[in-house]
Amino acid sequence: MQKRSTVRGARTRESILRTAADIASVDGLDGLTIGRLAAELEMSKSGLFAHFGSKEELQLATIDEARLRYAAEVITPGLAADRGIGRLDSLCQSFLSYVERGVFPGGCFFAAAMAEFDSKSSGPVLERAAEEGVEIGHLRATTDARQLAFELEASLLAANWYFHLYSDAGYFDRARRAIRARLRSESTATGRRTLSRGD
Amino acid sequence: MQKRSTVRGARTRESILRTAADIASVDGLDGLTIGRLAAELEMSKSGLFAHFGSKEELQLATIDEARLRYAAEVITPGLAADRGIGRLDSLCQSFLSYVERGVFPGGCFFAAAMAEFDSKSSGPVLERAAEEGVEIGHLRATTDARQLAFELEASLLAANWYFHLYSDAGYFDRARRAIRARLRSESTATGRRTLSRGD
Repeated sequence: MQKRSTVRGARTRESILRTAADIASVDGLDGLTIGRLAAELEMSKSGLFAHFGSKEELQLATIDEARLRYAAEVITPGLAADRGIGRLDSLCQSFLSYVERGVFPGGCFFAAAMAEFDSKSSGPVLERAAEEGVEIGHLRATTDARQLAFELEASLLAANWYFHLYSDAGYFDRARRAIRARLRSESTATGRRTLSRGD
Repeated sequence: MQKRSTVRGARTRESILRTAADIASVDGLDGLTIGRLAAELEMSKSGLFAHFGSKEELQLATIDEARLRYAAEVITPGLAADRGIGRLDSLCQSFLSYVERGVFPGGCFFAAAMAEFDSKSSGPVLERAAEEGVEIGHLRATTDARQLAFELEASLLAANWYFHLYSDAGYFDRARRAIRARLRSESTATGRRTLSRGD
């Protein structure tokens, strides 16, 4: 009996956190209160307090849940591409697809929560992939990996932002065009050939 | 007496709205309550209700105040440059300078409030300036003005966002580099000469 109820408890905790992460993607972490979550789940507040002792504990657990989902939907598929310009492109495409598919109903969880905790979103991963692109010879030796990551990230954030503001999926195409043109302009001949193979 | 108190009333209303716009740039329009504003101004809530009958009225008046400040700090100086690539560049520079100078303490008011009301920020103004750049022959005839405006806007928003998140003014330089490179890549020879004269 003890075991079964622990398993059920764990399952409940997981499904609570999925809902919590969905709410926070729409209303931010500050909008995620025990009361709001209880109403959404049709649970009692005391039932929720049995899982999470405080609002802070709930928020931290929700960030962990969101990190796992982000890793599974963006980072892991993005990194599956070969190192170099293909991986850099693949990380950008994975991000846009994750926003487009509504993995979080409010758009990128980390973009929404950025202002509330120190989240760097996809920046450092893109920068690393850009550095690899230079090392491998897909991007020019003069490429500034941090600058390139900033510019790619700007397009990704703008697409996420405008798509949710105007419910217009055309912003994903704008971001894809911007990213491809930016990657091409920074590519060596080898890099351009590698990028074209991905089309 | 009547006249003097009306003038004082107007002045008070103006200074109330300046503070209200500052608060909303940090906490969003939803964070702007009569109670919060009263505390900030060390006024009574009833004193504020004499100026604004409701939270909604206060929010609308605050948006008007923010629009005036944005026009005076970004649009008017941006449009002062000659039509063409110089004006497009000047609008971008005015925006970055306005964020950098902390015209609103929370960064761009309209970027912060975008999610809460239908604000298009600087997008349409940039698009119009890009179209003029094509008409005048500073930008290539093949330039897609909407796409270019999206990409410039993405850099502007990212600079605003990251600067306030990490208190790092280096993001303004990143945005300026991105914008100049993007404008150059889309320029005709005349456009490039015009852009260089602005340096």
